[in-house]
Amino acid sequence: MAQHRRVFFISDRTGLTVEALGSSLLTQFAGVEFQRITLPFIDTIPKAIAAVAQVNQTEDEVGQRALVFSSIVDDAVREEINKCHGLVLDVFERFIIPLEGELGEKSTHVVGKSHSAGNSKDYNHRIEAINYTLSHDDGVTNRELEEADIILVGVSRSGKTPTCLYMAMQFGIKAANYPLIPEDLEANRLPPALLAHKHKVWGLSIAPERLHQIRSERRPDSKYAALENCRYEVAAAEKLMKRNDIIFLDSTTKSIEEIATHVLHEAHLMRRVY
Amino acid sequence: MAQHRRVFFISDRTGLTVEALGSSLLTQFAGVEFQRITLPFIDTIPKAIAAVAQVNQTEDEVGQRALVFSSIVDDAVREEINKCHGLVLDVFERFIIPLEGELGEKSTHVVGKSHSAGNSKDYNHRIEAINYTLSHDDGVTNRELEEADIILVGVSRSGKTPTCLYMAMQFGIKAANYPLIPEDLEANRLPPALLAHKHKVWGLSIAPERLHQIRSERRPDSKYAALENCRYEVAAAEKLMKRNDIIFLDSTTKSIEEIATHVLHEAHLMRRVY
Repeated sequence: MAQHRRVFFISDRTGLTVEALGSSLLTQFAGVEFQRITLPFIDTIPKAIAAVAQVNQTEDEVGQRALVFSSIVDDAVREEINKCHGLVLDVFERFIIPLEGELGEKSTHVVGKSHSAGNSKDYNHRIEAINYTLSHDDGVTNRELEEADIILVGVSRSGKTPTCLYMAMQFGIKAANYPLIPEDLEANRLPPALLAHKHKVWGLSIAPERLHQIRSERRPDSKYAALENCRYEVAAAEKLMKRNDIIFLDSTTKSIEEIATHVLHEAHLMRRVY
Repeated sequence: MAQHRRVFFISDRTGLTVEALGSSLLTQFAGVEFQRITLPFIDTIPKAIAAVAQVNQTEDEVGQRALVFSSIVDDAVREEINKCHGLVLDVFERFIIPLEGELGEKSTHVVGKSHSAGNSKDYNHRIEAINYTLSHDDGVTNRELEEADIILVGVSRSGKTPTCLYMAMQFGIKAANYPLIPEDLEANRLPPALLAHKHKVWGLSIAPERLHQIRSERRPDSKYAALENCRYEVAAAEKLMKRNDIIFLDSTTKSIEEIATHVLHEAHLMRRVY
């Protein structure tokens, strides 16, 4: 039977960063089953005491002490968390001291500068990019394509929409997307509106078997979802992209994060927001 | 003059986690200006050698050595990165050893389990949630509201759409949203389609001055954007929400991450994806 451990992500803010960090580290232990609990906004001593009580129940309930990934800026609150019976790995504690030494400056110890709306230029970039991407999804308009940072093309359900939304949300990138529809594939040419913007067009492709599976969830037993049709569309789309010198990426085994990061990296686009 | 430092985020995968971690730590040093460069997919020794060369140019170009936040699973690749002249803070190195000790298990040292599409149940959850959220944006349909995990209401431009998309993308939560339009405000009642789902309705509010600013960017000098009208709409929406026992959150000074995390936390919803 697999070892079972309970993991807490405790943060004085959203907890998103410690969740990402902790989850990434936990994937290194394939033989352990982890039950994850996030406790965000632990920014006072009473809240820390309540969190510690919850962490300390773990031994009784699970049979082994908890793992705690934490990010607590305030020393007094962090000391409280450190009193729990779990193994505490505090990001702030472990990294801020070497950084203070290197920068020759004390850290401000002010909670909550990260992910904050404080930087309104960043915030406006994001919202503008999200709005742009929503209104340029799935080829709904040919207007303002000159404003796009990037334009994704690919057959229906190859992952364009989630990738574009992710790029807008996380990187502040204006990302339009166009489906390659049967007419484009038959004519073996890009949607005409894109010709003037070819330098910023990137492609997504996908294994026909996976496409068949995805499309079948939406429209089972349709011609649209048929494996034969998926094979034809993918082959025709790849031919079209090659002919038009559009670099494309296989999305089959990649997460949205991976596709978005790859495209950005290859297209030499920089993050607009942190 | 502010101290200027160059920072590298180096990862064998997307680099998103070290970027988030590093950026969060850097906000603690208000007196330093940071220039950030992400080098993703550094998963071979030749790529590591090239990355190190880039890091080492920093001293000549900036006058001080670089800071390097890294996450490298492979020991040989990490050793290469450690040879650079920058201050290297490797997440994997600093956390994996205490974790191995605690779990009594060696880490697999397999690159790239995080953010990977490997977990197809998670992946499907996300895509399904994104599609649901896109097709239930801005009250476009009253159908399938029983499937929603959460329904956000608020006046136009109070932050509903980005928050819903973020919840879908990052947490796999099906999030619908409804605008509170002048008719609703005058009648002082929720959009009728929501009455049966009141238990999962949450509100967003916003300071009238900020709303005026946001709306003015889209439609300057309109009645819609006028400060007077924003004041009326916000007051009427808050009155409506209070009357209907809808808990609401002020989005004015919060980032999308913060709003989404707050709502999830208050609504006792759990992440569906990690």
